[in-house]
Amino acid sequence: MIIQNVKGGYDFLPKEQKIRNYINDILRSTFEEYGYLPIETPILCYYDMLAGKYDENNDILKEIYKLSDQGKRNLGLRYDLTVPFAKFIAINKNELRLPFKRYEINKVFRDGPVKVGRDREFTQCDVDVVGIANQAIEAELIDLYVKAFKKLKIDVKIKINSRKLMSGLILNAGVSEELVSPAITIIDKIDKLSEDDFKEELRTLDLQDDAINDLCRYFKLSFADLITTFKDTDNALINEGIAELKSLFNYIDDLGISSSIVFTPSLARGQDYYTGNVFEVYEANGKLTGAIGGGGRYDKMITEFIGDGNIYPAVGISFGLTSIFALLKDRDEFKNTSNVDIYIIPLDTMSQALHLASNIRELGLKVDIEMNDRKVKKSLDYCNKEGIKYVIILGSDEIKNEAFKLKNMEDGTEEVINFANLTSILSKF
Amino acid sequence: MIIQNVKGGYDFLPKEQKIRNYINDILRSTFEEYGYLPIETPILCYYDMLAGKYDENNDILKEIYKLSDQGKRNLGLRYDLTVPFAKFIAINKNELRLPFKRYEINKVFRDGPVKVGRDREFTQCDVDVVGIANQAIEAELIDLYVKAFKKLKIDVKIKINSRKLMSGLILNAGVSEELVSPAITIIDKIDKLSEDDFKEELRTLDLQDDAINDLCRYFKLSFADLITTFKDTDNALINEGIAELKSLFNYIDDLGISSSIVFTPSLARGQDYYTGNVFEVYEANGKLTGAIGGGGRYDKMITEFIGDGNIYPAVGISFGLTSIFALLKDRDEFKNTSNVDIYIIPLDTMSQALHLASNIRELGLKVDIEMNDRKVKKSLDYCNKEGIKYVIILGSDEIKNEAFKLKNMEDGTEEVINFANLTSILSKF
Repeated sequence: MIIQNVKGGYDFLPKEQKIRNYINDILRSTFEEYGYLPIETPILCYYDMLAGKYDENNDILKEIYKLSDQGKRNLGLRYDLTVPFAKFIAINKNELRLPFKRYEINKVFRDGPVKVGRDREFTQCDVDVVGIANQAIEAELIDLYVKAFKKLKIDVKIKINSRKLMSGLILNAGVSEELVSPAITIIDKIDKLSEDDFKEELRTLDLQDDAINDLCRYFKLSFADLITTFKDTDNALINEGIAELKSLFNYIDDLGISSSIVFTPSLARGQDYYTGNVFEVYEANGKLTGAIGGGGRYDKMITEFIGDGNIYPAVGISFGLTSIFALLKDRDEFKNTSNVDIYIIPLDTMSQALHLASNIRELGLKVDIEMNDRKVKKSLDYCNKEGIKYVIILGSDEIKNEAFKLKNMEDGTEEVINFANLTSILSKF
Repeated sequence: MIIQNVKGGYDFLPKEQKIRNYINDILRSTFEEYGYLPIETPILCYYDMLAGKYDENNDILKEIYKLSDQGKRNLGLRYDLTVPFAKFIAINKNELRLPFKRYEINKVFRDGPVKVGRDREFTQCDVDVVGIANQAIEAELIDLYVKAFKKLKIDVKIKINSRKLMSGLILNAGVSEELVSPAITIIDKIDKLSEDDFKEELRTLDLQDDAINDLCRYFKLSFADLITTFKDTDNALINEGIAELKSLFNYIDDLGISSSIVFTPSLARGQDYYTGNVFEVYEANGKLTGAIGGGGRYDKMITEFIGDGNIYPAVGISFGLTSIFALLKDRDEFKNTSNVDIYIIPLDTMSQALHLASNIRELGLKVDIEMNDRKVKKSLDYCNKEGIKYVIILGSDEIKNEAFKLKNMEDGTEEVINFANLTSILSKF
């Protein structure tokens, strides 16, 4: 019998799980302040549904864990929360009112190479809305990002772009339709490459020198310069892209959060299904190189998935929980494993200790009791190691006097508390 | 492409998920008040580890979903949280201090028959402690049960028994060692069978009439009568079982919660791995026939699983989330789908609406905005259907006057709130 974890899956110890719960609780409350509702969808899905939108050579198919049940159904473990969301809308559309705003925080599985930040079993956190075409919703989601990261005390910069503008610019440079997608993959890396290397990569697509020079120039322009440069263009994608970004930036200005965003014309945000504005969140001080969140508008995916003739415009963002965890884990506030407020050491007073603990818990405090008859010194050592701040030693004198000393393990001070006046303990917390 | 859920797996709509989150939040905070810490373990496990403790004909093996990864490892989806807990202790024992108290609320999978209350993919909620042999911990867990169900406003009766006492009584009736386990399965049903049917079932084990009569009598005795009947016995299991129950009942008396418990000598609590006191929780007014929680002491399972020569006494309880959900779902407090506090209807004031919403959210309230240019009447209908109590109609007059009316949709009253004094809105919540 092999007693170990499967590659790419991890146990989260209490010290870690406490931080993960802290992050989830902040995110959940923020999502709900913005009107997003919780849902939960199953992990086990029909394999055909998971594979449906990809052609058979797509790498993602290799990474789907396949299995079958006793009824010989072909199943798979979901690899994201977006396909399950589309399925959720398709199945439940008659019970939902659009616009429908939901969040889901749950596990997904990918049978791929394991490296730092890439596990096989991990938790995704998605916030999506279906049924709103107006850019106001993108602005609201950017505002949600700003608010959530402020609560998490993480400084962020949010890169914003438009996939329409990006495609329009590429076409305008003279690149043919079928090369837009591979060109986007290269342009997405413009900030990581020297100009020569960038041009070199574009040349692999057999582009003309003029096109390459145009692309070099376009994707370094500021938003103001793009507007000026293309004020007379008849390229519909550029015009729509600029109009939608203008609308979004106006809302963001009025929300007073423009210092958190930066227009980044080369931002592609990977996924092919994005159709409009896209965003990516970075820690502002460079503590992490990768993104800690991202999303965008995808008006076609759910529409095509459901295929009932209705249009289902959609916008979604996600939070990179593993990266956020990495940014928080070394903070002082998380240095203790225990989150016990008070530890009771009974000296032949177990019954009274149980009762006292129960009464203190009624006040909302976290209380633990020594139950293994360890020596007092050993118990105090345990409290010091676990970082438990307050201790009560409960002996026969305490029972007789109906009072105990609440000992502060950090500064050694003690305060007498009467059983009859337990609530006075709350002044310490 | 099949767009549906796999048999035995369900989408939880917001209305349902809100209740599930409500339950989880109450349970989590209660567990932490009692010193239990959160952990999370992986769903994907080595198949051999999951199957390890069962012989190859055990039904549970058929119900394990099997799969393999690209590295040809034989894997399975976990079917409970107890094996993962034992594995967690085995792997992480050097980083943990005993006693170790943890809870985990997460998904498990069983490829078995689907019926009411039996899904293939469902959430388990387990609270376990390893490293305490004293019955004080059982008392504390019973107290936790009482407290948690009180917070959930569910009246409960907790049945308590001792597996030692039960085995001792069966052996004392003259049943042979190898028939104890099948006898327990029958005795567990004593309250559901007539005396004749009960005897009939026992006869299938080829027991003597004397033994059958003894079993009939023993398992209807009160705790006091059992003590009297067996005060001079030299049956060690009966003596230990009674002593441990006495210790537990004393603690429970002193905790002032004995009205919530009932000694039930026929209670077996299924699982073979229990070695001492066992408990099962029932809704007190018969609203559900099945148990809504249960657990007990299992001193051998982790000890044998780890096999490092140390003893790992353990006690655990679980909460039946599906049953608890069934008891809560029709409560008035959960009748609304939405949990939005205030709905803003902008009349050509989207930017200001976004800003106002963001500021009200800063106060901790849940705010949503109409973004589809629907007519005011339609938006108000939407609020009524969703059960949203407060509405703000934001037009140019409101912007000019720097004030808006907060309209109560239930009684039609309105109150003027100045932008400069937004916090006054909190008096309504």
